[in-house]
Amino acid sequence: MIQQEVKFDFDRRERIGIAEAVLCAGKTGAQIEHIIGLAEKRKQPLLLTRLRPRAFSGLSERLRGRIDFDPVSRTAIYGPVPVPSGPAQVAVASAGTSDAAVAREAFRTLAFHGVATEVIMDIGVAGLWRVMERREQLNGYRAVIVVAGMDGALFSVIGGLVGGVVIAVPTATGYGAARRGKTALHSALTSCAPGVVVVNVGNGFGAACAALRILRADAVAARG
Amino acid sequence: MIQQEVKFDFDRRERIGIAEAVLCAGKTGAQIEHIIGLAEKRKQPLLLTRLRPRAFSGLSERLRGRIDFDPVSRTAIYGPVPVPSGPAQVAVASAGTSDAAVAREAFRTLAFHGVATEVIMDIGVAGLWRVMERREQLNGYRAVIVVAGMDGALFSVIGGLVGGVVIAVPTATGYGAARRGKTALHSALTSCAPGVVVVNVGNGFGAACAALRILRADAVAARG
Amino acid sequence: MIQQEVKFDFDRRERIGIAEAVLCAGKTGAQIEHIIGLAEKRKQPLLLTRLRPRAFSGLSERLRGRIDFDPVSRTAIYGPVPVPSGPAQVAVASAGTSDAAVAREAFRTLAFHGVATEVIMDIGVAGLWRVMERREQLNGYRAVIVVAGMDGALFSVIGGLVGGVVIAVPTATGYGAARRGKTALHSALTSCAPGVVVVNVGNGFGAACAALRILRADAVAARG
Amino acid sequence: MIQQEVKFDFDRRERIGIAEAVLCAGKTGAQIEHIIGLAEKRKQPLLLTRLRPRAFSGLSERLRGRIDFDPVSRTAIYGPVPVPSGPAQVAVASAGTSDAAVAREAFRTLAFHGVATEVIMDIGVAGLWRVMERREQLNGYRAVIVVAGMDGALFSVIGGLVGGVVIAVPTATGYGAARRGKTALHSALTSCAPGVVVVNVGNGFGAACAALRILRADAVAARG
Amino acid sequence: MIQQEVKFDFDRRERIGIAEAVLCAGKTGAQIEHIIGLAEKRKQPLLLTRLRPRAFSGLSERLRGRIDFDPVSRTAIYGPVPVPSGPAQVAVASAGTSDAAVAREAFRTLAFHGVATEVIMDIGVAGLWRVMERREQLNGYRAVIVVAGMDGALFSVIGGLVGGVVIAVPTATGYGAARRGKTALHSALTSCAPGVVVVNVGNGFGAACAALRILRADAVAARG
Amino acid sequence: MIQQEVKFDFDRRERIGIAEAVLCAGKTGAQIEHIIGLAEKRKQPLLLTRLRPRAFSGLSERLRGRIDFDPVSRTAIYGPVPVPSGPAQVAVASAGTSDAAVAREAFRTLAFHGVATEVIMDIGVAGLWRVMERREQLNGYRAVIVVAGMDGALFSVIGGLVGGVVIAVPTATGYGAARRGKTALHSALTSCAPGVVVVNVGNGFGAACAALRILRADAVAARG
Amino acid sequence: MIQQEVKFDFDRRERIGIAEAVLCAGKTGAQIEHIIGLAEKRKQPLLLTRLRPRAFSGLSERLRGRIDFDPVSRTAIYGPVPVPSGPAQVAVASAGTSDAAVAREAFRTLAFHGVATEVIMDIGVAGLWRVMERREQLNGYRAVIVVAGMDGALFSVIGGLVGGVVIAVPTATGYGAARRGKTALHSALTSCAPGVVVVNVGNGFGAACAALRILRADAVAARG
Amino acid sequence: MIQQEVKFDFDRRERIGIAEAVLCAGKTGAQIEHIIGLAEKRKQPLLLTRLRPRAFSGLSERLRGRIDFDPVSRTAIYGPVPVPSGPAQVAVASAGTSDAAVAREAFRTLAFHGVATEVIMDIGVAGLWRVMERREQLNGYRAVIVVAGMDGALFSVIGGLVGGVVIAVPTATGYGAARRGKTALHSALTSCAPGVVVVNVGNGFGAACAALRILRADAVAARG
Repeated sequence: MIQQEVKFDFDRRERIGIAEAVLCAGKTGAQIEHIIGLAEKRKQPLLLTRLRPRAFSGLSERLRGRIDFDPVSRTAIYGPVPVPSGPAQVAVASAGTSDAAVAREAFRTLAFHGVATEVIMDIGVAGLWRVMERREQLNGYRAVIVVAGMDGALFSVIGGLVGGVVIAVPTATGYGAARRGKTALHSALTSCAPGVVVVNVGNGFGAACAALRILRADAVAARG
Repeated sequence: MIQQEVKFDFDRRERIGIAEAVLCAGKTGAQIEHIIGLAEKRKQPLLLTRLRPRAFSGLSERLRGRIDFDPVSRTAIYGPVPVPSGPAQVAVASAGTSDAAVAREAFRTLAFHGVATEVIMDIGVAGLWRVMERREQLNGYRAVIVVAGMDGALFSVIGGLVGGVVIAVPTATGYGAARRGKTALHSALTSCAPGVVVVNVGNGFGAACAALRILRADAVAARG
Repeated sequence: MIQQEVKFDFDRRERIGIAEAVLCAGKTGAQIEHIIGLAEKRKQPLLLTRLRPRAFSGLSERLRGRIDFDPVSRTAIYGPVPVPSGPAQVAVASAGTSDAAVAREAFRTLAFHGVATEVIMDIGVAGLWRVMERREQLNGYRAVIVVAGMDGALFSVIGGLVGGVVIAVPTATGYGAARRGKTALHSALTSCAPGVVVVNVGNGFGAACAALRILRADAVAARG
Repeated sequence: MIQQEVKFDFDRRERIGIAEAVLCAGKTGAQIEHIIGLAEKRKQPLLLTRLRPRAFSGLSERLRGRIDFDPVSRTAIYGPVPVPSGPAQVAVASAGTSDAAVAREAFRTLAFHGVATEVIMDIGVAGLWRVMERREQLNGYRAVIVVAGMDGALFSVIGGLVGGVVIAVPTATGYGAARRGKTALHSALTSCAPGVVVVNVGNGFGAACAALRILRADAVAARG
Repeated sequence: MIQQEVKFDFDRRERIGIAEAVLCAGKTGAQIEHIIGLAEKRKQPLLLTRLRPRAFSGLSERLRGRIDFDPVSRTAIYGPVPVPSGPAQVAVASAGTSDAAVAREAFRTLAFHGVATEVIMDIGVAGLWRVMERREQLNGYRAVIVVAGMDGALFSVIGGLVGGVVIAVPTATGYGAARRGKTALHSALTSCAPGVVVVNVGNGFGAACAALRILRADAVAARG
Repeated sequence: MIQQEVKFDFDRRERIGIAEAVLCAGKTGAQIEHIIGLAEKRKQPLLLTRLRPRAFSGLSERLRGRIDFDPVSRTAIYGPVPVPSGPAQVAVASAGTSDAAVAREAFRTLAFHGVATEVIMDIGVAGLWRVMERREQLNGYRAVIVVAGMDGALFSVIGGLVGGVVIAVPTATGYGAARRGKTALHSALTSCAPGVVVVNVGNGFGAACAALRILRADAVAARG
Repeated sequence: MIQQEVKFDFDRRERIGIAEAVLCAGKTGAQIEHIIGLAEKRKQPLLLTRLRPRAFSGLSERLRGRIDFDPVSRTAIYGPVPVPSGPAQVAVASAGTSDAAVAREAFRTLAFHGVATEVIMDIGVAGLWRVMERREQLNGYRAVIVVAGMDGALFSVIGGLVGGVVIAVPTATGYGAARRGKTALHSALTSCAPGVVVVNVGNGFGAACAALRILRADAVAARG
Repeated sequence: MIQQEVKFDFDRRERIGIAEAVLCAGKTGAQIEHIIGLAEKRKQPLLLTRLRPRAFSGLSERLRGRIDFDPVSRTAIYGPVPVPSGPAQVAVASAGTSDAAVAREAFRTLAFHGVATEVIMDIGVAGLWRVMERREQLNGYRAVIVVAGMDGALFSVIGGLVGGVVIAVPTATGYGAARRGKTALHSALTSCAPGVVVVNVGNGFGAACAALRILRADAVAARG
């Protein structure tokens, strides 16, 4: 017989500082409801990513009422939505308006973990003055998540200007030779600026998790 | 029987303003000597590209004495080497030292056709100040040939700053995800700066030919 | 907090001679309306590309009334539509009927910038007489934008016949090994005709922008 | 125990009209000598392809004396070399000088099977007059083997002009986006001329075998 | 202004023995109707391929009444549908039921040109007895069009058994590593049977055109 | 004329121990009904895979009543559904909830052939404790079918822990660089654990067939 | 400091029935000597794969004297070379002479583990009679390792004929579209014969390890 | 004229905390000597990467005497080699012996910048006990650089166990489907462990630079 019990990794936050999240793409509505039910039983908040509006609408009315759903980023938070306070330690910078969904997934993931974030949009390289006038500001964060598609030129430009950790998130913006984000991905990996790190195409969640690891590394250092 | 007579397109310069050149890669020494012999008979100068130093050494001493060979760009000119005069109408800008061979192939091709060119090296995006301090200068040419490998971020940066024709030449500089120039090529094709045009990886010759077409277009306009 | 203000690069036309256009693919209706609103406030005309008929229908009735929408090319012009006069300086030649959308995107972009263009359709290589009988005509333009899919043989044929600038626009016409335009793209990049330049698959807009740079280069030369 | 006896398909010529040939690439000298020995015992002639000059030199002096080796095409014929007579029924046309090796492999394979062939070199599309002046001639063969690299535009040009069978052999001529023959291969497969058939990159042998099948088909028809 | 007149290559049949057909994929209904109208004016029959049932339904009732539409192969014939007589000169063999659409496109194209064809379905290699019991029969045709997806093993099996021309048509049957026909395509190109020729994925039309060229070659030979 | 008779390989079970199954993807409803009809006539049970719920609904009511359809795995069984007894000889282990469909296809195929199977879900590597606590159990089966997408790390982890046959089934779970299962596929093929074998992306059916061959091999050995 | 101590997994044979082997490609001579030294200290035999003749020659004379080196398969065995007895339980079948190295790597790995193997060479599909006359024999083994390059048609042919486990090992034999073994690999993965399993290109070692797991599975079954 | 003056970005260390290094691959000996000369003039230390032993031997004897060259990692340090003190803040963990060169490039880059590093080798997943016994230790660093080739399973295993920043460096170890590091790269990007970040294949230098950014981020935080 098939054992349908889901083995959720609820101790992950304790183990590595990042809560297990639910990637909803590829899961049926029943599976998603079941996992939220597990969180309910344990009284744990839960982050869901890649939840399409139609899939959200398909959840029971009771659950929908307890979930904070953001259709732009397709993220949902079950449980209290934290309101981070204090100055932002992380920035999310995006090249164009089409990159907003991914930028916002990073922002929401950081918020879920209680981290204040500054979001800076529309500073693509074709109008270089936009990033140049932000140069000072961008140098003040521990980590800058850079979200860009097409040729991903923004990764190298910011990577060459700031000394904090630069996390490149390629997006599928563009067409033809943009190859659904592969070109931006390869650009990020071959950035001429040293030490730029990269996550998967469209993976705003992963970039935020990397930022959480960096902040935790600080804490480790402070303890040490 | 195999007809070994080479059908060289000697009228190409008259037809489209660009002389047929000899791509030496993939040709045997005997084939190369044969083609130079044809040019000799017609008393036409000849440009040879992708001629490896070893292949040059293999030519007869008599021919070597009549050829101007440049080992960096692997180009050779049979016949008088023109010395273009007047202010440069075209610039060749390259991102890093490793791109010098391709940049120089473009320079030599333009020189062969009598066009004065300005070469500007080492202005990669990781140190953005280098291109920013050249901004005025770059805006003064009819065409700027931009030579860059790795992530090709320089294409978009220059494309967003200058109004002349920007011809992107991707190079194989880099490793891994640079995929022997494919990443720079795809970046050039998806540049967020509008109207950047692209030639094949490492094709400094082709970029120069495109510049020749642009200058000829001016002449057409002046005549028109 | 997320700053939703769009950073539009309104000075681009002054800086490099090409107005910033709005790539509508990947943007929500709200984002598109917001950007048109910014143009309205500045009293600037605006070009929109890749606007699907359904997305156009979703705009407010007021905006739709002020926009010239062309469903074939999926372009829209906000503001007065220029009627270029004088003889055409640029030609757009396409291989087959299926390439009409891309050819028309180039035509509309040039018209938006006030440039008269000649469009020549259906001159694919399988019936070579069609391009041969246009040979004289094609040699009379400063730039010829060639639009072709499948094997892109037309790029080399025209590139070998005319002396003006040849801008190849590969299209996704074809199936299987045509790989949604990649084969035509690679053919354009490896054209045996010297100096053919290339833009992204389906990028009629980019080809037109390149032509604008060429015409501007003439102006620079005339001034110089 | 490993059975080292080679299972050569000596009856293939009788079965399908094409003799089994030995692809020497990837075989050791000992293996090649062993196979020639088998042919010797059966007193059958034998065609060897992709035999590098160095591998030929490594054969025993006795064998080298009985083999007709052509270093350009890297083919070797053991046994009497046929001299086909009568008018050519097949033509081999190649785009550039760099394609000569592959063209000659086709020619030698046909000769080995006793078929007279016309070889026409250097008629690439960049100088279209070269193919146009051969148009009449090319229309007179049962099959035309077209050998071309780079963008493979010659396949469509000839395919649109002649009514015989057009067999496209892509070659690795070119660099960068030519991707060692893949671009010419994809061009051949997506040719806008109807009914062009294709063999593997550099497979002059296979193209010749296809021509043999066509000639045999005639014979079948004549019998029928 | 855009010249909307379609340049149809009506003389193609006379020139190379194959009528120009209309590839409907990528064309609008208006474009398709316009082309049929041209054929109507010239009183020429016309073959349309890749015409989706929905596109057929969108044609005017008058035209639909004059067209023979086959939804399986998505082909349509305007004008009288020929009924070929005499014994079949060409066979179409397919590996599985899923390959029927492509096999039938070849059959219909041959029928349109008046050629009698034998269709043999479901003889895939997993049950080898099916092709073995057809071996004699398959050896009796001038050309065998083999239609197969997945690993395309049928190409080599038939290519090794019969002496006529074997034209491989890869199909998109399969999933995952079948990569929409690319695996079958590459298998066809690297067939261990000598002289197998290949057309594009799913190109039943092209395979039929190749067969027409072969039959025409016979005629040339008979005349010669 | 086209012979529409389907050549079903009904003797396959006798020949190699695996019944021919019907891959419904790419087949029309009529074709599927026809094949079930053939099984009905022969009174043989039949397994159908990749049958979409919509395709199932399209079957005649009579047939639907005689078919056991499982929408999760998209498998259908015509005829009596076996209930395997005895301890499981094969295990199916999957990394995440999104891999359930493929895991279940393997389970259903084994059940159809009368083999008892243990299914173990949700033991992905990110929470390594989940697979570690199953280590003993996994070592008790003759074959373990491992179903995983994304980076497929589970293949190597289990392959290094157990001595039975490990059959890796990559799935399309994930996005971007997961490339619809290609990354998991390549990971499986390059597993650092020795002797892991691989089937196509999503091919739960094939993995089950491989397990059947293994069990049959036992029987052969017992007889031997 | 870098800890140069190698962590060799000497207990692997006990854990999963397969001894850890040394993949010599990518290792320096010093590293290889160091690992053999570890085996010497533990008095354990050791299998080395992908050891180039030149690398073997570079080992110390003392070690070379204690190693059984096979230059065809590039395998080396340190310690006593087992001589398996009894009838072969596994067969290794290869398509062509060029596949001998990989076939022999499988044979040597099985011999190292004491398993008797039958090797059957040169039974490629182009001459189908060769595999047909072995059909009975091939059906008598628990596992058949099939080694083939080019189009890999042999995988499906054998997979459809025998009921034992069929392990496909693609090889890099061929050129062009064979893409160094990728085509044979994809053919293996999409084999139309059910339950064929696949290992990496050229991985004779891995195929042998899989066979070891199958034989061990028998033992498990016998114990159970 | 070509301006040969190199524009070295000597202020980069001040600007972003990372000194510009010289990627020697693709540079001539003369270019490398020239750049070292510039550093000499400024009395700045200099790191050179990808310097092949043969290229090092080609430098002038004077320079070789002032350079600390490490042939394993192909790195060279001009100027005093720092000896970092204090407990390691960063770990470099590698899967196999073949990954040593890349691991050591990371170690040397960190040492050049004065950072103490712990190197842990040979803890690949096939013998999982090796990484499990290091689990505690690995959790004590601010950043863990994980170096692995083949299937890159180590990235997810470590990413799921430790809470610090995990920087994945894929390597080219392996063959066939390992595709010179692409498979490990894609595995890293699709790691099922959240927040793993990735650099280019073989880019030990880049991973070390990312670690420098992380440590600098701590310093920023401490200041803040």
